[in-house]
Amino acid sequence: MDVGFVGLGAMGRAMARRLLAEGHAVRVWNRSPQPVAELVRDGASAGGSLAEVFEQPVVVSMLADDHVVEALLLDEELLSSARAGVHVNMATVSPALARRAAELHARHGLGYVAAPVLGRTDVAAAGNLNILAAGPAAELDRLAPLFEAMGRRTWPLGEDPAAANVAKVSANFLLVSAIEAFSEAAVLAEANGLDPAALLGVLTESLFPGPVYAGYGAMITRQSFEPAGFRLALGLKDVDLALATGTASRVPLPLASLLRDTLLQAIAHGHGEQDLAAISTTSRTRANI
Amino acid sequence: MDVGFVGLGAMGRAMARRLLAEGHAVRVWNRSPQPVAELVRDGASAGGSLAEVFEQPVVVSMLADDHVVEALLLDEELLSSARAGVHVNMATVSPALARRAAELHARHGLGYVAAPVLGRTDVAAAGNLNILAAGPAAELDRLAPLFEAMGRRTWPLGEDPAAANVAKVSANFLLVSAIEAFSEAAVLAEANGLDPAALLGVLTESLFPGPVYAGYGAMITRQSFEPAGFRLALGLKDVDLALATGTASRVPLPLASLLRDTLLQAIAHGHGEQDLAAISTTSRTRANI
Amino acid sequence: MDVGFVGLGAMGRAMARRLLAEGHAVRVWNRSPQPVAELVRDGASAGGSLAEVFEQPVVVSMLADDHVVEALLLDEELLSSARAGVHVNMATVSPALARRAAELHARHGLGYVAAPVLGRTDVAAAGNLNILAAGPAAELDRLAPLFEAMGRRTWPLGEDPAAANVAKVSANFLLVSAIEAFSEAAVLAEANGLDPAALLGVLTESLFPGPVYAGYGAMITRQSFEPAGFRLALGLKDVDLALATGTASRVPLPLASLLRDTLLQAIAHGHGEQDLAAISTTSRTRANI
Amino acid sequence: MDVGFVGLGAMGRAMARRLLAEGHAVRVWNRSPQPVAELVRDGASAGGSLAEVFEQPVVVSMLADDHVVEALLLDEELLSSARAGVHVNMATVSPALARRAAELHARHGLGYVAAPVLGRTDVAAAGNLNILAAGPAAELDRLAPLFEAMGRRTWPLGEDPAAANVAKVSANFLLVSAIEAFSEAAVLAEANGLDPAALLGVLTESLFPGPVYAGYGAMITRQSFEPAGFRLALGLKDVDLALATGTASRVPLPLASLLRDTLLQAIAHGHGEQDLAAISTTSRTRANI
Repeated sequence: MDVGFVGLGAMGRAMARRLLAEGHAVRVWNRSPQPVAELVRDGASAGGSLAEVFEQPVVVSMLADDHVVEALLLDEELLSSARAGVHVNMATVSPALARRAAELHARHGLGYVAAPVLGRTDVAAAGNLNILAAGPAAELDRLAPLFEAMGRRTWPLGEDPAAANVAKVSANFLLVSAIEAFSEAAVLAEANGLDPAALLGVLTESLFPGPVYAGYGAMITRQSFEPAGFRLALGLKDVDLALATGTASRVPLPLASLLRDTLLQAIAHGHGEQDLAAISTTSRTRANI
Repeated sequence: MDVGFVGLGAMGRAMARRLLAEGHAVRVWNRSPQPVAELVRDGASAGGSLAEVFEQPVVVSMLADDHVVEALLLDEELLSSARAGVHVNMATVSPALARRAAELHARHGLGYVAAPVLGRTDVAAAGNLNILAAGPAAELDRLAPLFEAMGRRTWPLGEDPAAANVAKVSANFLLVSAIEAFSEAAVLAEANGLDPAALLGVLTESLFPGPVYAGYGAMITRQSFEPAGFRLALGLKDVDLALATGTASRVPLPLASLLRDTLLQAIAHGHGEQDLAAISTTSRTRANI
Repeated sequence: MDVGFVGLGAMGRAMARRLLAEGHAVRVWNRSPQPVAELVRDGASAGGSLAEVFEQPVVVSMLADDHVVEALLLDEELLSSARAGVHVNMATVSPALARRAAELHARHGLGYVAAPVLGRTDVAAAGNLNILAAGPAAELDRLAPLFEAMGRRTWPLGEDPAAANVAKVSANFLLVSAIEAFSEAAVLAEANGLDPAALLGVLTESLFPGPVYAGYGAMITRQSFEPAGFRLALGLKDVDLALATGTASRVPLPLASLLRDTLLQAIAHGHGEQDLAAISTTSRTRANI
Repeated sequence: MDVGFVGLGAMGRAMARRLLAEGHAVRVWNRSPQPVAELVRDGASAGGSLAEVFEQPVVVSMLADDHVVEALLLDEELLSSARAGVHVNMATVSPALARRAAELHARHGLGYVAAPVLGRTDVAAAGNLNILAAGPAAELDRLAPLFEAMGRRTWPLGEDPAAANVAKVSANFLLVSAIEAFSEAAVLAEANGLDPAALLGVLTESLFPGPVYAGYGAMITRQSFEPAGFRLALGLKDVDLALATGTASRVPLPLASLLRDTLLQAIAHGHGEQDLAAISTTSRTRANI
């Protein structure tokens, strides 16, 4: 399939490469030129402008956040001249942005699909992402081959694109919640003569199997937060998305508020560029351990 | 092995039956007589008094909480006349009580082991508990056949009995945390057009496999809280144990504080006797959904 | 003095009238025409455009929030053509906006002073506001006659305009904090056989004299929230300003987070247009009273 | 009047001296002997035992907390032999203890009045306490001369002694709330270029007059916490009383929970013996200032 691809950060590059690997023709664009050159070496073609990329029948975008999407893509001129049939936004953005984007695309005769993903860079490189997809059913069908190239499973979440963003925001909120819970427990254990690693062993082989407790738990018990698989500052961005979505829909989220304060403290103490697991430093600071 | 068994609530009965099933001779005692009669029908012998039960070489106890243990078993007279070599307390009690109990037992020449368990009644009936055990290594060895009769796995957590109680308290704290996190997310989803059951499907097959999210999540998405597998009021007891342990060791646990307020609100709204999953009613009340 | 005045909401009207009453020549502008007509009847002249108002040597503005200020006044064209020597922004806006505004005004050769006020409409009408003023000392001197017309006291808070906004944001944060504290205590009292009004009497004549506890406390003990002297929804706006300022400067404010969730719940329950004292309904809902 | 007086800590000594100064005959008892000797020098007589003190027609007690009251005074033997007509407990204890005490005293034909006080040691020495009194009206009348000797004003709060303890617990909860609120604001100010002392000046001369904001605020802006007028560890005790009262009556108090965690962190960081104003160190730690 002919695909336009906008946004070649670490995730975007891994995903675009999966499309190339599965035989799709990918035309890429990125604000800074180096990742474009990299992808061209891997077989992509370079789009000279966003408008050129939006000449492809399908455009995938994977940009940093609401602001960048708003600034680059929610542009009347770009969308009015686009020949793309559908734009699938795979970034973690707010449901509110999804609603604005869907409305704007519709006005210009373009389809809009939200398809944020679960998985870090290594998961993306292996084509094993979980893809949370919402939008018109016909568009989802059309995108299926692309999703299959990038993910191990696609979760259809209905016709309203915003629903997929709500799911992604919720998943990340639960992720940070689990990390905070284990962080508090680990300090309680340590202060009471129980090895946090022994506690983690019990938990992950009984109540809490799966990648989150085991993976972040290991970093927490070792207090080792580099390299950052998922930067802590991004965790604050995601919790803020949850809170903003809650505010807009009048849903108080006190646990998200607690996570926000905890993350902010971690950033104030210099852990913003470390892995999200460094949220546990806040628990240790509280207890003066 | 000759075993004394104190405390025949639902968990205690299931565990004592597992001992009988594996061929142990069990002498039981309970404050109310009916469960004793039941167990006698299953092959146990009735202890005429606590003292009689403490004549067995090993005593297992499974009582409701710190107060009951304190009132019935941390009794100078009982312990001074006991012939039991070791008392294994499998209830969910505070690490502080474990410390007092271990000291008191030692003074009377008795071993004390803490071995709280993970698993509800049905898991206990199947002999599949996870047993968190801490105490002198020799005692743990001696108790191994009993633990094997009751559990699928025993987790040795060191020589200090309190460590096992810290682990149990931490596990339950994480359990309630996970329920609160999903509860908040489910309301956010519902208020934003995403079916909470669809969200749960994504989560349990990606980041959060295992029994906790799936089991409690299903009750939350259905808002169905009866019968109570784990009573909400017991959840408050457990979170209070975490907070008390934190206070004693000067470890602030803001997430536990939030859970405490959330549970208390659920009780104020009449959900104390329902399943722990009814904590989610608080999220719904907050958002007026 | 010749004064331009932008923003004729309830507060703005009261303040502009004070300027007229003290003999100043006031040229007014407002987005909707009716308040302009009202002020003209009171002796003001109508500015045909913002640009015309900014021809006055001093411009006072009293707009709703950051967005409105940004949209109307932080306009390159307006500021480049302005003949005003100094613009004093008396609205409750963020310190971040003050920093941007000061920089932008300076670029166009205009002075910028932040002078948010403490006091509701009736206090403004009586000329009894507390004015929190920050900006270049020479500008503050020049504005003194205007401040004297509007307030009972001016608090100079240094050369950096943002400092005055920080003070205002902090004052409102303390105000909402005090209301939440008394609200929780009032429910505790009621649930325990102590008349909240009796409690309020003790508090206001011992530890907590002054207008806040007495005034909001009386509304809380009567559970009477109309008319709204200070709309609850505005309270959320102000707490959000505190949180945003905290985020930008990496200062976690867990009490502000709690207030935010409490206010949001009150809004979800339909109290957004009532007086700020209606925050107390959240405490009652929590306790199911 | 002949008065028995139990509990000669700093507050108790100051209050007993006021009784002596007003001509009452005071028979004192204390667990440690030295304060007794001191009071005897001031004109009191030494009670040889608690029973002897309870031979007086009126007994005032001012003990440390629930545990001490329970252990020393809620004693069947003591109360059954007492000839005192009324016992007035002026300590800060839980409403729950007041209920048990009132019931127990009634069973032994003794009156029980709760009369906790507002004011630190210096206020007590000057006879300027605010006395929050609840109990049978006839008893309150009888105690009036004693209250007049010790306080500047007595607040009658009804027939149920527990109500007075609820009022006291609430007052201290509001006190700690105000300190936390100003602490957070002071850090926000400091991080944003506003002198916290200037902020305090504005607040105390506008919205927040009275001793609490001014007194604690001055300690906070100077970060000077010694000598301790009110020990921080006692603040935690009082907030715990509020929370326990809330739990017993099913009233969630999230602000009290936040204060508890904040105080616990301050204690973990070594501030337990400093003045309550040291709660502000937690805000500074959060922001890494």
